[in-house]
Amino acid sequence: MTNTKDTGQLPAGHVSNDFRGQDILSVSQFDRAKLDYIFNVGQEMQVLVERFGSADLLQGKILANLFYEPSTRTSSSFMAAMLRLGGQVIPINNVQYSSVTKGESLPDTIRTLESYADVIVLRHPELGAAAIAAHYAKKPIINAGDGVGEHPTQALLDLFTINQDLGQLDGLKIAMVGDLKYGRTVHSLTKLLINYGVEFVFVNPDILPMPEDVLDVVRGTGHTFHQTKNVHEIIGEVDVLYVTRVQKERFTDLEQYDRVKDDYVVDEALMSHAKQKMIVMHPLPRINEISYAIDDDPRAAYFRQMRNGMYIRMALLAAVLGKG
Amino acid sequence: MTNTKDTGQLPAGHVSNDFRGQDILSVSQFDRAKLDYIFNVGQEMQVLVERFGSADLLQGKILANLFYEPSTRTSSSFMAAMLRLGGQVIPINNVQYSSVTKGESLPDTIRTLESYADVIVLRHPELGAAAIAAHYAKKPIINAGDGVGEHPTQALLDLFTINQDLGQLDGLKIAMVGDLKYGRTVHSLTKLLINYGVEFVFVNPDILPMPEDVLDVVRGTGHTFHQTKNVHEIIGEVDVLYVTRVQKERFTDLEQYDRVKDDYVVDEALMSHAKQKMIVMHPLPRINEISYAIDDDPRAAYFRQMRNGMYIRMALLAAVLGKG
Amino acid sequence: MTNTKDTGQLPAGHVSNDFRGQDILSVSQFDRAKLDYIFNVGQEMQVLVERFGSADLLQGKILANLFYEPSTRTSSSFMAAMLRLGGQVIPINNVQYSSVTKGESLPDTIRTLESYADVIVLRHPELGAAAIAAHYAKKPIINAGDGVGEHPTQALLDLFTINQDLGQLDGLKIAMVGDLKYGRTVHSLTKLLINYGVEFVFVNPDILPMPEDVLDVVRGTGHTFHQTKNVHEIIGEVDVLYVTRVQKERFTDLEQYDRVKDDYVVDEALMSHAKQKMIVMHPLPRINEISYAIDDDPRAAYFRQMRNGMYIRMALLAAVLGKG
Repeated sequence: MTNTKDTGQLPAGHVSNDFRGQDILSVSQFDRAKLDYIFNVGQEMQVLVERFGSADLLQGKILANLFYEPSTRTSSSFMAAMLRLGGQVIPINNVQYSSVTKGESLPDTIRTLESYADVIVLRHPELGAAAIAAHYAKKPIINAGDGVGEHPTQALLDLFTINQDLGQLDGLKIAMVGDLKYGRTVHSLTKLLINYGVEFVFVNPDILPMPEDVLDVVRGTGHTFHQTKNVHEIIGEVDVLYVTRVQKERFTDLEQYDRVKDDYVVDEALMSHAKQKMIVMHPLPRINEISYAIDDDPRAAYFRQMRNGMYIRMALLAAVLGKG
Repeated sequence: MTNTKDTGQLPAGHVSNDFRGQDILSVSQFDRAKLDYIFNVGQEMQVLVERFGSADLLQGKILANLFYEPSTRTSSSFMAAMLRLGGQVIPINNVQYSSVTKGESLPDTIRTLESYADVIVLRHPELGAAAIAAHYAKKPIINAGDGVGEHPTQALLDLFTINQDLGQLDGLKIAMVGDLKYGRTVHSLTKLLINYGVEFVFVNPDILPMPEDVLDVVRGTGHTFHQTKNVHEIIGEVDVLYVTRVQKERFTDLEQYDRVKDDYVVDEALMSHAKQKMIVMHPLPRINEISYAIDDDPRAAYFRQMRNGMYIRMALLAAVLGKG
Repeated sequence: MTNTKDTGQLPAGHVSNDFRGQDILSVSQFDRAKLDYIFNVGQEMQVLVERFGSADLLQGKILANLFYEPSTRTSSSFMAAMLRLGGQVIPINNVQYSSVTKGESLPDTIRTLESYADVIVLRHPELGAAAIAAHYAKKPIINAGDGVGEHPTQALLDLFTINQDLGQLDGLKIAMVGDLKYGRTVHSLTKLLINYGVEFVFVNPDILPMPEDVLDVVRGTGHTFHQTKNVHEIIGEVDVLYVTRVQKERFTDLEQYDRVKDDYVVDEALMSHAKQKMIVMHPLPRINEISYAIDDDPRAAYFRQMRNGMYIRMALLAAVLGKG
């Protein structure tokens, strides 16, 4: 499903990237060399935006931004990425009210949209939807989240942010905090981080542990990790604190929820024990798991993460369209 | 309602098309000369897209894409057409939740939007809506479907596809299959095809025949047609098999539906009896009336139809804005 | 909240406008000099659009058009304004179904969007939302209506229309008609008009008078006004008749509504008593408070108002992005 695809009238061979005409479906497509490549292009995109605002690299190209479930953040980020490269966007945000209500299949919708557009970004509630789309499409598909499946561009922007803010990945101690059982984000990030010499700390309530299959991946690559319930225990030693929300709905025993809910809140008191050079990350949206009081703390990286998301998506769009 | 309208600051008279400043409301506006003109421009648009992706012919022009009912396919096609010509689009897809909920009339909405845009594409659930819009508008209106009324750009892209794929229109034997009673698409296509020397075959369940007023048009121009219930009878002799869905909801007697529903399914078995040079068409979305197994058959033209829709809409937008 | 903000890589100091990097939150920000400035730029925008259609003044800039409640008219107007200046737009129209359903706060949504965009237009149902957004944002915020709060760009386009159509503001007699109690539009317009030597007439049913705080503003600046129930009394002497809808829902006593509802309808009979040089305005949408029969009367200014809205929004976008 990731064979080379038709990307239209691009000048042949003027770049040496492995992504031209490819789909971006899973973090498992990325090894260290490919991550280096995307991060280098991402840095160039940052310079480009900060210096010029926009470029015309993808002028004349059209992105179909196909969202079967709403996600203002992700859809806006991809739109901005395409527009800042001089491309155009067809936003399709209410597809549940549309062709799909007439019962159209995902393959037919994809084949229709690729007859208009040069690349398709797909957000879909069902696991495996992106792979199905990629199987039928001749144009590149970028997975923007398929249910409990993957959301690879989120994991890439997370990794890029760590690298940008801390200047390295090897040697870091990285804590993931909160709902590690259902958090698609932390699973994907973990699978990218194993390409580097990092140490993992998993901090979660008893009922929301990192799944065994993810732990197996960590073990399989010889990485060390340890697990704890208490963020206070580890706050002083970590380089990255990646926070996710502990949702009430996950608990059948609400007393249990009430007992643990405040153990995973990041506030000024907690941050006073953190290292000076470390970062707090969050995929957003947050509710109350990170206090507004630390938003101006330079260690709060979550709004930089947002902006990095645009740079990484610019890099990916340019790469799959043969302009990276 | 199709008097010459204001199209802004266009250089006068550098093209000789009859569409400049006109509305596109009905297939009845098109005679053979006009069809030739649009199809020629459509072919040029295909060359342009295949060679360059996009152009800047409509740079600085704005399309208001006003959809009172959702249609991902049609709205995306018009958006792509405008963007590939260098124009811009204001998409208005949720108008039912908007001004209209405050009770605003269509004429006021149209007059508001034409104060912002250079051309308006209108999809509306009510018969005659496009003509009302055109009556009040100074800028060109393109009808993208008005209820049981017309959807002229669909009929144009259908005809264009036959001409492109088979190299001619005169002399063809054209079968329309399925729900011919309520199928707006086949009515409009028939009304365009009478401009050519074609032979019609109408294949439908008893309760869903081609309406008498359409048959009268066919008779009135001296065309021969015959009617049958059985697609197997005629599959070996037709040049075009235009398939529409037989919807369960049309039947009050569900036993009757169960008896006929499989008679109108196009699959590999049926296609083994078809000519080598012929095409299967469908306006999409399809459910099961065409088997996925024939999607890769070169005679399956329905995805090419989609792409041709973009070319024809590019031709129409350029023409009404005086750039065709 | 209106300190100078980051507007990216703009050439410094080549224009002398006070709006660069500023938020547009309230009509109270505008004095006579600033109104002159915006109206001059607005006139230039009109010339630009009439002569060239579009320009590339804001090429490479992105507007996030964030609408928490639907408003086709206002959102389309801002989109058209940005596109005609060569900028691009991220339309966010269904935000209620989106991040917000996950409980995200307005400040976080704003800080996310400003990481993608250069300027944010915000429509929100709650009073004060625009000020909150502006407090958190580093990029300029333009208030496109915050509940019972303000809708400053509407008031600016209204004032601009009077000035354009009548060639002056000083010396005019201006009647506001209908629901003056709940009409945000007339409150804001009144607060702008006090910068000029005008005379006010407020025409309303007993239960829907201009609020005391607005009257206090009028009194405080030494302007004369009088109040009446009867539009026929004053129609012969006014230069501007600004009409708003009297909504049935405002009345608990429906007999009272039935008694007054026709007293506020503008039709040919009423217009026969109006001056030859005067204008009828309406913020739209209208229901029946202005008869369609007067739409072609040159004194009917409401569709010109719409178009002026685009020019004024072009002026504001250019000004806050440092290009006015």
